[in-house]
Amino acid sequence: MARWQPDAHGRLCAAALELFEERGYEETTVAAIAERAGLTKRTFFRYFGDKREVLFAGSEEFQATFVDAVAGAPQSVSPLEAIGAGLAAVAERLEGRREFAPRRQAILATNPELAERERAKMASLAAGAAAALRERGVGDPAAGLAAEAGIAVLHVAFAEWIAGGAEGDLGGLMRDALAELRALAA
Amino acid sequence: MARWQPDAHGRLCAAALELFEERGYEETTVAAIAERAGLTKRTFFRYFGDKREVLFAGSEEFQATFVDAVAGAPQSVSPLEAIGAGLAAVAERLEGRREFAPRRQAILATNPELAERERAKMASLAAGAAAALRERGVGDPAAGLAAEAGIAVLHVAFAEWIAGGAEGDLGGLMRDALAELRALAA
Repeated sequence: MARWQPDAHGRLCAAALELFEERGYEETTVAAIAERAGLTKRTFFRYFGDKREVLFAGSEEFQATFVDAVAGAPQSVSPLEAIGAGLAAVAERLEGRREFAPRRQAILATNPELAERERAKMASLAAGAAAALRERGVGDPAAGLAAEAGIAVLHVAFAEWIAGGAEGDLGGLMRDALAELRALAA
Repeated sequence: MARWQPDAHGRLCAAALELFEERGYEETTVAAIAERAGLTKRTFFRYFGDKREVLFAGSEEFQATFVDAVAGAPQSVSPLEAIGAGLAAVAERLEGRREFAPRRQAILATNPELAERERAKMASLAAGAAAALRERGVGDPAAGLAAEAGIAVLHVAFAEWIAGGAEGDLGGLMRDALAELRALAA
Protein backbone atom coordinates (compact mmCIF):
# COMPACT_ATOMS: atom_id res chain seq x y z
CA MET A 1 0.00 0.00 0.00
CA ALA A 2 1.36 3.40 -0.96
CA ARG A 3 2.40 5.59 1.96
CA TRP A 4 0.42 8.53 0.75
CA GLN A 5 -3.25 8.07 -0.02
CA PRO A 6 -4.99 10.71 -2.12
CA ASP A 7 -7.67 12.50 -0.03
CA ALA A 8 -7.36 10.06 2.86
CA HIS A 9 -9.02 12.60 5.16
CA GLY A 10 -12.07 12.96 2.94
CA ARG A 11 -12.36 9.22 2.40
CA LEU A 12 -12.20 8.54 6.14
CA CYS A 13 -14.90 11.17 6.83
CA ALA A 14 -17.16 9.72 4.14
CA ALA A 15 -16.61 6.15 5.35
CA ALA A 16 -17.27 7.12 8.99
CA LEU A 17 -20.53 8.92 8.16
CA GLU A 18 -21.75 5.98 6.10
CA LEU A 19 -21.02 3.51 8.87
CA PHE A 20 -22.47 5.72 11.63
CA GLU A 21 -25.65 5.89 9.54
CA GLU A 22 -25.75 2.20 8.63
CA ARG A 23 -24.71 0.60 11.94
CA GLY A 24 -25.01 3.38 14.47
CA TYR A 25 -22.24 5.45 16.02
CA GLU A 26 -21.62 3.17 18.98
CA GLU A 27 -21.37 0.02 16.88
CA THR A 28 -18.83 1.51 14.47
CA THR A 29 -15.15 0.83 15.11
CA VAL A 30 -12.12 2.70 13.84
CA ALA A 31 -11.04 -0.53 12.14
CA ALA A 32 -14.31 -0.68 10.21
CA ILE A 33 -14.00 2.99 9.17
CA ALA A 34 -10.47 2.44 7.89
CA GLU A 35 -11.51 -0.70 6.06
CA ARG A 36 -14.47 1.00 4.38
CA ALA A 37 -12.15 3.80 3.27
CA GLY A 38 -9.65 1.27 1.94
CA LEU A 39 -7.03 2.55 4.38
CA THR A 40 -5.31 1.32 7.53
CA LYS A 41 -6.08 2.12 11.16
CA ARG A 42 -2.65 3.70 11.28
CA THR A 43 -3.71 6.12 8.55
CA PHE A 44 -6.93 6.89 10.46
CA PHE A 45 -4.93 7.84 13.54
CA ARG A 46 -2.79 10.15 11.46
CA TYR A 47 -5.88 12.34 11.05
CA PHE A 48 -8.12 11.69 14.06
CA GLY A 49 -7.62 10.85 17.73
CA ASP A 50 -10.71 8.64 17.79
CA LYS A 51 -13.97 8.14 15.91
CA ARG A 52 -15.61 11.04 17.76
CA GLU A 53 -13.04 13.40 16.28
CA VAL A 54 -14.41 12.71 12.81
CA LEU A 55 -17.53 14.60 13.95
CA PHE A 56 -15.75 17.31 15.95
CA ALA A 57 -12.57 18.01 13.98
CA GLY A 58 -12.39 21.69 13.12
CA SER A 59 -14.33 22.88 16.20
CA GLU A 60 -11.47 25.16 17.25
CA GLU A 61 -11.25 26.70 13.78
CA PHE A 62 -15.04 27.11 13.76
CA GLN A 63 -14.87 29.02 17.06
CA ALA A 64 -11.90 31.08 15.83
CA THR A 65 -13.85 32.04 12.69
CA PHE A 66 -16.77 33.25 14.82
CA VAL A 67 -14.74 35.05 17.47
CA ASP A 68 -12.35 36.70 15.00
CA ALA A 69 -15.26 38.07 13.00
CA VAL A 70 -16.88 39.49 16.16
CA ALA A 71 -13.56 41.03 17.22
CA GLY A 72 -12.88 42.38 13.74
CA ALA A 73 -16.24 44.04 13.11
CA PRO A 74 -16.02 47.84 12.72
CA GLN A 75 -15.78 49.50 16.12
CA SER A 76 -18.80 51.65 15.25
CA VAL A 77 -21.29 48.75 15.10
CA SER A 78 -23.54 47.65 17.98
CA PRO A 79 -22.83 44.49 20.02
CA LEU A 80 -25.57 42.58 18.23
CA GLU A 81 -24.26 43.72 14.84
CA ALA A 82 -20.80 42.48 15.79
CA ILE A 83 -22.39 39.13 16.67
CA GLY A 84 -24.12 39.29 13.28
CA ALA A 85 -20.69 39.55 11.64
CA GLY A 86 -19.64 36.40 13.49
CA LEU A 87 -22.78 34.59 12.35
CA ALA A 88 -22.15 35.62 8.73
CA ALA A 89 -18.60 34.26 8.93
CA VAL A 90 -19.63 30.85 10.30
CA ALA A 91 -22.53 30.63 7.87
CA GLU A 92 -20.08 30.96 5.00
CA ARG A 93 -17.94 28.25 6.52
CA LEU A 94 -20.90 25.90 6.98
CA GLU A 95 -22.12 26.49 3.42
CA GLY A 96 -19.01 24.59 2.39
CA ARG A 97 -20.19 21.62 4.44
CA ARG A 98 -23.71 21.39 3.03
CA GLU A 99 -23.41 17.69 2.45
CA PHE A 100 -21.72 16.87 5.74
CA ALA A 101 -23.55 19.15 8.21
CA PRO A 102 -27.08 17.63 8.17
CA ARG A 103 -25.78 14.07 8.27
CA ARG A 104 -23.49 14.96 11.17
CA GLN A 105 -26.40 16.58 13.01
CA ALA A 106 -28.56 13.48 12.59
CA ILE A 107 -25.80 11.33 14.08
CA LEU A 108 -25.35 13.69 17.06
CA ALA A 109 -29.04 13.28 17.82
CA THR A 110 -28.65 9.50 18.19
CA ASN A 111 -26.07 9.62 20.98
CA PRO A 112 -26.37 11.56 24.26
CA GLU A 113 -22.60 11.89 24.68
CA LEU A 114 -22.26 13.44 21.22
CA ALA A 115 -25.19 15.77 21.87
CA GLU A 116 -23.54 16.86 25.12
CA ARG A 117 -20.24 17.49 23.39
CA GLU A 118 -22.08 19.67 20.87
CA ARG A 119 -23.76 21.65 23.68
CA ALA A 120 -20.36 22.14 25.31
CA LYS A 121 -19.06 23.45 21.99
CA MET A 122 -21.93 25.93 21.78
CA ALA A 123 -21.33 27.08 25.38
CA SER A 124 -17.68 27.61 24.56
CA LEU A 125 -18.66 29.55 21.43
CA ALA A 126 -20.90 31.83 23.53
CA ALA A 127 -18.13 32.38 26.09
CA GLY A 128 -15.62 33.19 23.32
CA ALA A 129 -17.98 35.66 21.66
CA ALA A 130 -18.75 37.34 25.01
CA ALA A 131 -15.02 37.73 25.67
CA ALA A 132 -14.57 39.28 22.20
CA LEU A 133 -17.38 41.74 22.93
CA ARG A 134 -15.81 42.69 26.28
CA GLU A 135 -12.56 43.43 24.45
CA ARG A 136 -14.57 45.76 22.24
CA GLY A 137 -15.60 47.64 25.39
CA VAL A 138 -19.05 46.09 25.83
CA GLY A 139 -19.93 45.80 29.52
CA ASP A 140 -21.74 43.11 31.45
CA PRO A 141 -24.37 41.78 31.33
CA ALA A 142 -24.70 43.11 27.75
CA ALA A 143 -21.71 41.11 26.45
CA GLY A 144 -23.00 37.80 27.79
CA LEU A 145 -26.54 38.47 26.69
CA ALA A 146 -25.62 39.50 23.14
CA ALA A 147 -23.32 36.47 22.79
CA GLU A 148 -25.88 33.99 24.09
CA ALA A 149 -28.65 35.56 22.00
CA GLY A 150 -26.32 35.17 19.02
CA ILE A 151 -25.95 31.46 19.73
CA ALA A 152 -29.74 31.22 19.94
CA VAL A 153 -29.91 32.77 16.46
CA LEU A 154 -27.23 30.39 15.16
CA HIS A 155 -29.01 27.42 16.65
CA VAL A 156 -32.44 28.29 15.27
CA ALA A 157 -31.19 29.26 11.80
CA PHE A 158 -29.03 26.14 11.59
CA ALA A 159 -32.02 23.95 12.55
CA GLU A 160 -34.08 25.56 9.78
CA TRP A 161 -31.28 25.04 7.30
CA ILE A 162 -30.95 21.37 8.26
CA ALA A 163 -34.73 20.87 8.18
CA GLY A 164 -34.73 22.19 4.62
CA GLY A 165 -32.08 19.67 3.60
CA ALA A 166 -29.37 22.32 4.00
CA GLU A 167 -30.50 23.95 0.78
CA GLY A 168 -30.87 27.69 0.50
CA ASP A 169 -28.68 30.32 1.98
CA LEU A 170 -27.66 29.76 5.62
CA GLY A 171 -26.34 33.32 5.84
CA GLY A 172 -29.77 34.58 4.83
CA LEU A 173 -31.49 32.38 7.43
CA MET A 174 -29.09 33.78 10.08
CA ARG A 175 -29.93 37.36 9.07
CA ASP A 176 -33.65 36.56 9.10
CA ALA A 177 -33.44 34.95 12.55
CA LEU A 178 -31.51 37.94 13.90
CA ALA A 179 -34.17 40.26 12.46
CA GLU A 180 -36.86 38.08 14.03
CA LEU A 181 -35.12 38.35 17.40
CA ARG A 182 -35.07 42.13 17.04
CA ALA A 183 -38.79 42.10 16.17
CA LEU A 184 -39.55 39.92 19.20
CA ALA A 185 -37.66 42.29 21.48
CA ALA A 186 -39.21 45.45 20.01
CA MET B 1 -32.11 3.84 65.05
CA ALA B 2 -35.57 5.29 64.68
CA ARG B 3 -37.26 4.52 61.36
CA TRP B 4 -38.18 8.11 60.73
CA GLN B 5 -35.48 10.78 60.86
CA PRO B 6 -36.55 14.39 61.19
CA ASP B 7 -35.59 16.34 58.04
CA ALA B 8 -33.48 13.51 56.65
CA HIS B 9 -33.68 15.06 53.17
CA GLY B 10 -32.33 18.41 54.34
CA ARG B 11 -29.60 16.79 56.40
CA LEU B 12 -28.47 14.65 53.45
CA CYS B 13 -28.36 17.70 51.16
CA ALA B 14 -26.34 19.70 53.67
CA ALA B 15 -23.94 16.80 54.30
CA ALA B 16 -23.46 16.18 50.57
CA LEU B 17 -22.69 19.84 49.84
CA GLU B 18 -20.20 19.99 52.70
CA LEU B 19 -18.39 16.89 51.50
CA PHE B 20 -18.42 17.92 47.83
CA GLU B 21 -16.80 21.18 48.93
CA GLU B 22 -14.31 19.61 51.33
CA ARG B 23 -13.22 16.53 49.35
CA GLY B 24 -14.46 17.17 45.86
CA TYR B 25 -17.49 15.65 44.14
CA GLU B 26 -15.71 12.64 42.70
CA GLU B 27 -14.07 11.65 45.98
CA THR B 28 -17.33 11.76 47.93
CA THR B 29 -19.22 8.49 48.41
CA VAL B 30 -22.86 7.95 49.33
CA ALA B 31 -21.64 6.16 52.46
CA ALA B 32 -19.71 9.25 53.54
CA ILE B 33 -22.72 11.50 52.89
CA ALA B 34 -24.99 9.28 54.96
CA GLU B 35 -22.43 9.07 57.75
CA ARG B 36 -21.95 12.86 57.85
CA ALA B 37 -25.73 13.26 58.06
CA GLY B 38 -25.92 10.68 60.87
CA LEU B 39 -28.10 8.47 58.67
CA THR B 40 -27.77 5.17 56.82
CA LYS B 41 -27.10 4.56 53.13
CA ARG B 42 -30.51 2.93 53.03
CA THR B 43 -32.04 6.23 54.13
CA PHE B 44 -30.02 8.09 51.48
CA PHE B 45 -31.43 5.83 48.75
CA ARG B 46 -34.94 6.51 50.01
CA TYR B 47 -34.47 10.09 48.76
CA PHE B 48 -31.88 9.99 45.97
CA GLY B 49 -30.88 7.53 43.24
CA ASP B 50 -27.22 8.50 43.54
CA LYS B 51 -25.02 11.35 44.74
CA ARG B 52 -25.58 13.29 41.52
CA GLU B 53 -29.30 13.41 42.27
CA VAL B 54 -28.58 15.55 45.34
CA LEU B 55 -27.59 18.29 42.89
CA PHE B 56 -30.31 17.64 40.30
CA ALA B 57 -33.35 16.66 42.35
CA GLY B 58 -36.24 18.95 41.53
CA SER B 59 -35.14 19.59 37.92
CA GLU B 60 -38.48 18.36 36.56
CA GLU B 61 -40.42 20.61 38.94
CA PHE B 62 -38.16 23.51 38.00
CA GLN B 63 -38.96 22.98 34.33
CA ALA B 64 -42.66 22.55 35.08
CA THR B 65 -42.65 25.86 37.00
CA PHE B 66 -41.11 27.64 34.02
CA VAL B 67 -43.21 26.02 31.31
CA ASP B 68 -46.50 26.33 33.23
CA ALA B 69 -45.89 30.05 33.78
CA VAL B 70 -45.18 30.56 30.06
CA ALA B 71 -48.29 28.59 29.13
CA GLY B 72 -50.41 30.39 31.72
CA ALA B 73 -49.44 33.98 30.83
CA PRO B 74 -52.36 36.08 29.56
CA GLN B 75 -53.03 35.32 25.88
CA SER B 76 -52.65 39.04 25.09
CA VAL B 77 -48.95 39.27 26.00
CA SER B 78 -46.06 38.96 23.53
CA PRO B 79 -43.90 35.81 23.29
CA LEU B 80 -41.05 37.50 25.15
CA GLU B 81 -43.43 38.69 27.86
CA ALA B 82 -44.71 35.14 28.28
CA ILE B 83 -41.09 34.03 28.67
CA GLY B 84 -40.71 36.85 31.22
CA ALA B 85 -43.55 35.30 33.22
CA GLY B 86 -41.66 32.00 33.21
CA LEU B 87 -38.49 33.72 34.38
CA ALA B 88 -40.36 35.45 37.21
CA ALA B 89 -41.77 32.11 38.36
CA VAL B 90 -38.40 30.35 38.45
CA ALA B 91 -36.75 33.37 40.10
CA GLU B 92 -39.24 33.08 42.95
CA ARG B 93 -38.44 29.40 43.25
CA LEU B 94 -34.68 30.00 43.29
CA GLU B 95 -34.99 32.76 45.90
CA GLY B 96 -35.98 29.99 48.28
CA ARG B 97 -32.64 28.27 47.53
CA ARG B 98 -30.39 31.27 48.17
CA GLU B 99 -28.10 29.27 50.38
CA PHE B 100 -28.00 26.15 48.20
CA ALA B 101 -27.86 27.61 44.67
CA PRO B 102 -24.41 29.28 44.65
CA ARG B 103 -22.75 26.35 46.41
CA ARG B 104 -24.34 23.94 43.95
CA GLN B 105 -23.16 26.08 41.03
CA ALA B 106 -19.58 26.07 42.34
CA ILE B 107 -19.64 22.27 42.53
CA LEU B 108 -21.01 21.94 38.98
CA ALA B 109 -18.06 24.00 37.75
CA THR B 110 -15.59 21.47 39.18
CA ASN B 111 -16.86 18.48 37.22
CA PRO B 112 -17.36 18.29 33.42
CA GLU B 113 -20.05 15.62 33.69
CA LEU B 114 -22.09 17.77 36.09
CA ALA B 115 -21.62 20.84 33.92
CA GLU B 116 -22.85 18.82 30.93
CA ARG B 117 -25.88 17.62 32.82
CA GLU B 118 -26.70 21.23 33.68
CA ARG B 119 -26.39 22.26 30.01
CA ALA B 120 -28.70 19.39 29.07
CA LYS B 121 -31.18 20.69 31.66
CA MET B 122 -31.04 24.18 30.14
CA ALA B 123 -31.51 22.79 26.61
CA SER B 124 -34.55 20.86 27.83
CA LEU B 125 -35.89 24.01 29.50
CA ALA B 126 -35.56 25.92 26.21
CA ALA B 127 -37.30 23.12 24.30
CA GLY B 128 -40.12 23.04 26.85
CA ALA B 129 -40.61 26.80 26.73
CA ALA B 130 -40.59 26.78 22.91
CA ALA B 131 -43.27 24.06 22.93
CA ALA B 132 -45.36 26.13 25.35
CA LEU B 133 -45.06 29.16 23.05
CA ARG B 134 -46.11 27.08 20.03
CA GLU B 135 -49.21 26.00 21.95
CA ARG B 136 -49.93 29.71 22.45
CA GLY B 137 -49.93 30.04 18.65
CA VAL B 138 -46.42 31.46 18.26
CA GLY B 139 -44.86 30.26 15.00
CA ASP B 140 -41.33 29.21 14.14
CA PRO B 141 -38.65 30.39 14.31
CA ALA B 142 -40.09 32.95 16.77
CA ALA B 143 -40.97 30.32 19.39
CA GLY B 144 -37.49 28.80 19.42
CA LEU B 145 -35.79 32.18 19.37
CA ALA B 146 -37.85 33.65 22.21
CA ALA B 147 -37.34 30.52 24.31
CA GLU B 148 -33.57 30.39 23.75
CA ALA B 149 -33.25 34.12 24.32
CA GLY B 150 -35.15 33.59 27.57
CA ILE B 151 -32.65 30.96 28.67
CA ALA B 152 -29.85 33.43 27.83
CA VAL B 153 -31.54 35.95 30.15
CA LEU B 154 -31.94 33.32 32.88
CA HIS B 155 -28.33 32.26 32.53
CA VAL B 156 -26.90 35.79 32.66
CA ALA B 157 -29.12 36.98 35.52
CA PHE B 158 -28.41 33.83 37.50
CA ALA B 159 -24.65 34.31 37.02
CA GLU B 160 -24.96 37.88 38.32
CA TRP B 161 -26.98 36.71 41.29
CA ILE B 162 -24.42 34.03 42.15
CA ALA B 163 -21.52 36.48 41.67
CA GLY B 164 -23.19 38.78 44.20
CA GLY B 165 -23.37 35.99 46.75
CA ALA B 166 -27.02 35.33 45.78
CA GLU B 167 -28.05 38.45 47.63
CA GLY B 168 -30.50 40.89 46.15
CA ASP B 169 -33.55 40.15 44.11
CA LEU B 170 -33.12 37.50 41.41
CA GLY B 171 -36.48 38.44 39.90
CA GLY B 172 -35.24 42.00 39.52
CA LEU B 173 -32.02 40.84 37.87
CA MET B 174 -34.08 38.75 35.44
CA ARG B 175 -36.26 41.76 34.57
CA ASP B 176 -33.17 43.95 34.14
CA ALA B 177 -31.48 41.38 31.88
CA LEU B 178 -34.63 41.05 29.77
CA ALA B 179 -34.77 44.87 29.46
CA GLU B 180 -31.07 44.85 28.50
CA LEU B 181 -31.75 42.27 25.79
CA ARG B 182 -34.53 44.51 24.45
CA ALA B 183 -32.17 47.48 24.48
CA LEU B 184 -29.49 45.49 22.63
CA ALA B 185 -32.00 44.46 19.98
CA ALA B 186 -33.47 47.92 19.55
